[in-house]
Amino acid sequence: MGRITVRKPILTLRVDGEERRRPDTLAVEEPLEIRIGGTPLAVTMRTPGHDVELAAGFLVSEAVISRGDEFSGAIHCGGPGTGGVENTYNVLDVTLAPGVRPPSPDLARSFYTTSSCGVCGKASIDAVETVSSYDVSTDRATVDLPLLASLPDLLRAQQAVFDKTGGLHAAGLFDAATGDLLVLREDVGRHNAVDKVVGWAALHDRLPLRGTVLQVSGRASFELVQKAAMAGIPILAAVSAPSSLAVDLAEARGITLVGFSRGQSLNVYSRADRILTSTTTPAAADALADMLPR
Amino acid sequence: MGRITVRKPILTLRVDGEERRRPDTLAVEEPLEIRIGGTPLAVTMRTPGHDVELAAGFLVSEAVISRGDEFSGAIHCGGPGTGGVENTYNVLDVTLAPGVRPPSPDLARSFYTTSSCGVCGKASIDAVETVSSYDVSTDRATVDLPLLASLPDLLRAQQAVFDKTGGLHAAGLFDAATGDLLVLREDVGRHNAVDKVVGWAALHDRLPLRGTVLQVSGRASFELVQKAAMAGIPILAAVSAPSSLAVDLAEARGITLVGFSRGQSLNVYSRADRILTSTTTPAAADALADMLPR
Repeated sequence: MGRITVRKPILTLRVDGEERRRPDTLAVEEPLEIRIGGTPLAVTMRTPGHDVELAAGFLVSEAVISRGDEFSGAIHCGGPGTGGVENTYNVLDVTLAPGVRPPSPDLARSFYTTSSCGVCGKASIDAVETVSSYDVSTDRATVDLPLLASLPDLLRAQQAVFDKTGGLHAAGLFDAATGDLLVLREDVGRHNAVDKVVGWAALHDRLPLRGTVLQVSGRASFELVQKAAMAGIPILAAVSAPSSLAVDLAEARGITLVGFSRGQSLNVYSRADRILTSTTTPAAADALADMLPR
Repeated sequence: MGRITVRKPILTLRVDGEERRRPDTLAVEEPLEIRIGGTPLAVTMRTPGHDVELAAGFLVSEAVISRGDEFSGAIHCGGPGTGGVENTYNVLDVTLAPGVRPPSPDLARSFYTTSSCGVCGKASIDAVETVSSYDVSTDRATVDLPLLASLPDLLRAQQAVFDKTGGLHAAGLFDAATGDLLVLREDVGRHNAVDKVVGWAALHDRLPLRGTVLQVSGRASFELVQKAAMAGIPILAAVSAPSSLAVDLAEARGITLVGFSRGQSLNVYSRADRILTSTTTPAAADALADMLPR
């Protein structure tokens, strides 16, 4: 497994009358069922590959684990009825470390509603606050503006190697100080690409991800900021627009949220103090950092 | 409610040193909990507005209902603990018509797995086949290539009225013969925009949506083709790439799937016979149509 593209014959039609049959490369999408100790937890449509990272990152995002050593292992297993003959590699059974509490069955609801105050954006934000293991607001990481603005191009350059389909989202984790790419993952689902990155970090005992920038190829939704918060990522940059609730959550958790990052300019929606411009003196940056709680 | 954008102060940084503080318009994202007769069914992050359509379309997509008269009504209600004092308009309680079977609690898994053959793309496609009320493959609709290729621009022109954020997905339903726009809906979630369109059709007793084209602003995933199949839409066109499983499902259900629709050209992944080019004579189109089962 791990096949992320497939070839298919397609027909290209031009309004001027040209018709061409040719093979095209498509991003693979397949269901993955994540189980915990044999009990089905969730099904996600994903691009196969890095499934163990995907599961680990999903569990971090959903507050089931917060460190890599809480994740004992995972195996792909055959589905029911296959009689063990066929393994589709679309079922992954995770074993948690002894003492780690398995998630409740209504996990999907946990981030959106609380029993105390109904269903609203504020409740969703409070829920992330309640379950977060890491306080991102105190992360003293800074990033130079030109470096930050160059990350979408770096991401695309790397992604071009893998993605010939135009159909895969990418998430890249960079060192905020040096700009070094730590890991890049792709998926038909933007949230899956981020879960794979976070899962990589969990399995390499790198949580919380202090001093990093997560650059994503699409938009910034609430869910993406939630994943950054749960993994302790201080700076999240998107190529397109954030939603209102993404900005609200970034403000509440002290995450630097950047959108419309387009090479020469970018928009900052929260915690702009982490971005060093040519007018930011080192002393000013230090002063800003000193204003933060330790 | 129904507020789809909100203004926030942001900071725009340019690499050349220019800094500008200004208000920016963001797409609103808020959770919606859909209940059936008081029982929570699902929570989705959506852009408020057209919530009843969203719920109705979601229920069509998930095979809970297939006609508008199976949906009795819906009311926004306060969440638990609000004591009736505050209504966040983020909980919608749906009443099904007498005799309509409420969904099973593991509805989320139904499209991805079946007990007979494990978890795989084939099983996901079979699941849609099993629950579909409409046979799209026999829909004799055709669309002229220039008209089809112009739909993304029509969608964007209409969407520009509403979306100043760059953060909203759009789904527009068009008459395949005339190109008339029947309904357009926007949402931070692509799948929600499509559910709102399908829900509009259900509530106006227009299912199945024979003779229509659904044009969407983003990519075409399995989930989007599933929604088209469940609503009986014969032609689905996306501005960006489809996934492998989206193509497989379109082929299996006899849906015309178009991707990379970019004004002057487009790619056809399945059932190209519904697209009339300058080289398609009316007689040839009739002959093709006659080959289909009635």
